Amino acid sequence: MGDLALGVDLGGTNVRAALVDRASGVVRRLERHALDGRSPEEVAAAVARVVRAVANEQEVRAFGRLGLGVAGQVLGTSGLVLNAPNLGWRDVPLGPMLAAALGAPVRVVNDLSAAAWGESRFGAARGVKDALVVFVGTGVGCGIVVGGRLHEGARGVAGELGHVKVRPPRAGEPPRRCGCGMVGCLEAYAGGANLAARVRSDLAGGTSSGIGALVGGDLSRITAGHVEQACAAGDGYARHLWEEVGDLLAGAVANAVTLLNPERVVLGGGVLRGSLTLREIVEFHVRAEASRTAAGGLSIVTAELEDEAGVVGAALLATESAA
Amino acid sequence: MGDLALGVDLGGTNVRAALVDRASGVVRRLERHALDGRSPEEVAAAVARVVRAVANEQEVRAFGRLGLGVAGQVLGTSGLVLNAPNLGWRDVPLGPMLAAALGAPVRVVNDLSAAAWGESRFGAARGVKDALVVFVGTGVGCGIVVGGRLHEGARGVAGELGHVKVRPPRAGEPPRRCGCGMVGCLEAYAGGANLAARVRSDLAGGTSSGIGALVGGDLSRITAGHVEQACAAGDGYARHLWEEVGDLLAGAVANAVTLLNPERVVLGGGVLRGSLTLREIVEFHVRAEASRTAAGGLSIVTAELEDEAGVVGAALLATESAA
Repeated sequence: MGDLALGVDLGGTNVRAALVDRASGVVRRLERHALDGRSPEEVAAAVARVVRAVANEQEVRAFGRLGLGVAGQVLGTSGLVLNAPNLGWRDVPLGPMLAAALGAPVRVVNDLSAAAWGESRFGAARGVKDALVVFVGTGVGCGIVVGGRLHEGARGVAGELGHVKVRPPRAGEPPRRCGCGMVGCLEAYAGGANLAARVRSDLAGGTSSGIGALVGGDLSRITAGHVEQACAAGDGYARHLWEEVGDLLAGAVANAVTLLNPERVVLGGGVLRGSLTLREIVEFHVRAEASRTAAGGLSIVTAELEDEAGVVGAALLATESAA
Repeated sequence: MGDLALGVDLGGTNVRAALVDRASGVVRRLERHALDGRSPEEVAAAVARVVRAVANEQEVRAFGRLGLGVAGQVLGTSGLVLNAPNLGWRDVPLGPMLAAALGAPVRVVNDLSAAAWGESRFGAARGVKDALVVFVGTGVGCGIVVGGRLHEGARGVAGELGHVKVRPPRAGEPPRRCGCGMVGCLEAYAGGANLAARVRSDLAGGTSSGIGALVGGDLSRITAGHVEQACAAGDGYARHLWEEVGDLLAGAVANAVTLLNPERVVLGGGVLRGSLTLREIVEFHVRAEASRTAAGGLSIVTAELEDEAGVVGAALLATESAA
């Protein structure tokens, strides 16, 4: 098994485990299970089951350490999940729980950090020493690659781009509250879940837009993809929303570029992948707002590994990173 | 000379050279000369003179390489100064010019990067692996220390905190133009030179403030120190200005903290050093606005090396950093 590593991606509704070739990043085996419940005990059991589906007990032990990415803040290398809004968790010692269930140590990391590391090693940022890998999906986050290594920070929570504070672009509008409890976080504007909730609320409040027709009047079905679809069809509300979200997102990315002077920015995640208009607005504004020297020579590219980035990165981080 | 290194700090009005003990950071000899002219040739000659004042030709060669910090953007390790507003320079090949004049290679770096590295090695961030060293003086900049190394970025311009874009806090107010030509840069609000110009303009425009009396009506004498002095005496305009500048400065630093999760933030530079009120506002807002996890355990301290940080850091970078 020396050439393989085991990575797990724990989402809000399902959990996936994969055997990953460490030398190529290729996924050799992948299993996905739905989560039945969201209590820490139920989730730990579900993770153990999906892990067992890709490797038996002896094989799991032979890996030395597994990697797991979770949508939440993880304290350093402790395995303690401080906050995972999708699962409704606070201060869950997931790493120790899984180690007990699996009989092998588990390195728990933020899911977007894991995905960024996957893109860095085998995706759109391979071979790049200094990169910023940005994901805009349900949540917003990034991985900062410095000198070819993932920068984890003093407490392991570097890359929280979604919790960078942005100012509302419209005068007099109060900043929005984020799932983390603070106000004005980028994720409150650009995260897919918050975006959809905002569109629902705007439409329920009487805003005129073609988005309602796209979901047959069932506002609960609205996703960022419907905003893109409406925008492409000339919907004014959708266009305005993309301009606002793109401006805020690009502002945060441009400032990170000015600060870090990366060679490459990778843009990924479900919202950006499904919204070409938003993607274009973001790229335009990043180039216009980053300092000229940092923007000069900067390449802005699209993530390549898509849904596999998380399991690949988690598997690699488990075996590569510091204990 | 094996235990010594030679560092130069090139400001807008004078140039200083120092022999620095590499093991302790102690400055063994320091010379300061005024600049007679600002043309690249005049400045190169002035640098050569001040360097010769601390070490003879043979000693200079024995150092292997000198380090020089300049208030401007420097392209990678080329020695090319892209932009140095205080000197009125664009695209000046200072490194090669100095190498010819001195008979020894010179590593040219941004002055605040050099000072940040000085603080990192022997000042307020010594022993800290991940630190953000922020300077607010005539200009605004920072040094990003990752894993105990200065992060220089793909083109060597990482740390341009002064050119991070901030939004004006007052509705309807257009963003200010920066010396770099862009609008909305932090330095346009918080840099000492721009701050003083703004106060002059406000007072000349009839704004009521005790600052005018502090300079005996000679508005050309106004500095950030007078704003602090007036604020301490209860001046409403000065207090309001510090609140606005502190909010913008803290917002940019807080977002950098959220993104990078450093263990320590060091605050230095003439404006912050001379303005206890501003310093307090900044610290309060950074703690309030950074993500809770990144803010937890973060120490915010004051720079220790003061004016010597630049020559110390430049001397160290010359001998330590990549060619």
